[in-house]
Amino acid sequence: MVILGIDPGTAITGYGLLEVKDHKITHLAHGVLLTDKNLPTPNRMLSLYTQLNDLLSQWHPDVLVTEKLFFANNVNTALAVGGSIGVVLLAAAQRAIPWIEYRPAEVKMAVVGYGRAEKKQIQYMITKLLALPNPPTPDDAADALAIALCHAHSAPLRKVQNLS
Amino acid sequence: MVILGIDPGTAITGYGLLEVKDHKITHLAHGVLLTDKNLPTPNRMLSLYTQLNDLLSQWHPDVLVTEKLFFANNVNTALAVGGSIGVVLLAAAQRAIPWIEYRPAEVKMAVVGYGRAEKKQIQYMITKLLALPNPPTPDDAADALAIALCHAHSAPLRKVQNLS
Repeated sequence: MVILGIDPGTAITGYGLLEVKDHKITHLAHGVLLTDKNLPTPNRMLSLYTQLNDLLSQWHPDVLVTEKLFFANNVNTALAVGGSIGVVLLAAAQRAIPWIEYRPAEVKMAVVGYGRAEKKQIQYMITKLLALPNPPTPDDAADALAIALCHAHSAPLRKVQNLS
Repeated sequence: MVILGIDPGTAITGYGLLEVKDHKITHLAHGVLLTDKNLPTPNRMLSLYTQLNDLLSQWHPDVLVTEKLFFANNVNTALAVGGSIGVVLLAAAQRAIPWIEYRPAEVKMAVVGYGRAEKKQIQYMITKLLALPNPPTPDDAADALAIALCHAHSAPLRKVQNLS
């Protein structure tokens, strides 16, 4: 099973790809999809869509995983990030890739064993658990790997529970 | 020039189509694109995208017009509506249809001549200005027509000002 974790944003969308085979988790890739701030929003949506489709064509993920987002106050940010999420979900639906969403506390719990872990702790644990030579950067890519890892840990359990 | 006004939403997206030719504005169509509440979000994004592309293929609009949205408090609504906007803008960009956004006060001013007009006044003026047999329903479709009408009124001015 190839898991694609996505941390969506307007300028930077992080991605992390993991493979789970015979209970072993292997790191495949991580990085960011960038869109040019100077372009009009429709062109940025198209740029994100095109880059994401390249990623889907290259890796053929079996599942898309995102984190349930919460914005305390910033409605404009929510509106903008919502656009990126909409495009990501559309691209997944066009390929019939199932989508699962986890709460931030679930991601932290799965990766660090503690629901209120700091970003640094998460980055440290991802580096250890995936045996990476260096901590993944930037934060958006590290977050996407954490989201994918959360599903890698949760997926066997979900299967038993018949949730997926 | 064919103008497509869109009032995006998660469950209901209103649309209104007008033609401007020799300074005459003609009503072409209006209605709503619906997505099933019971479907997962990615499928709803795909449904909206498919319906919108059918509309674009049928009417070949020269410009897409939306209203700049403001949500006082509801961040979750902003996030959800943002997804629909993202998909709408993507579909426009894929066909190289330019996009223009107006503030709600600009739409009201252009249609009623008063920036704080009520929904009922807008509906009344749209019916009059477009010589419709009945007030357009639902509200989402009426709003989309108002947005398209705002651009029909503003477009000649924008051309002179070299804004578009």
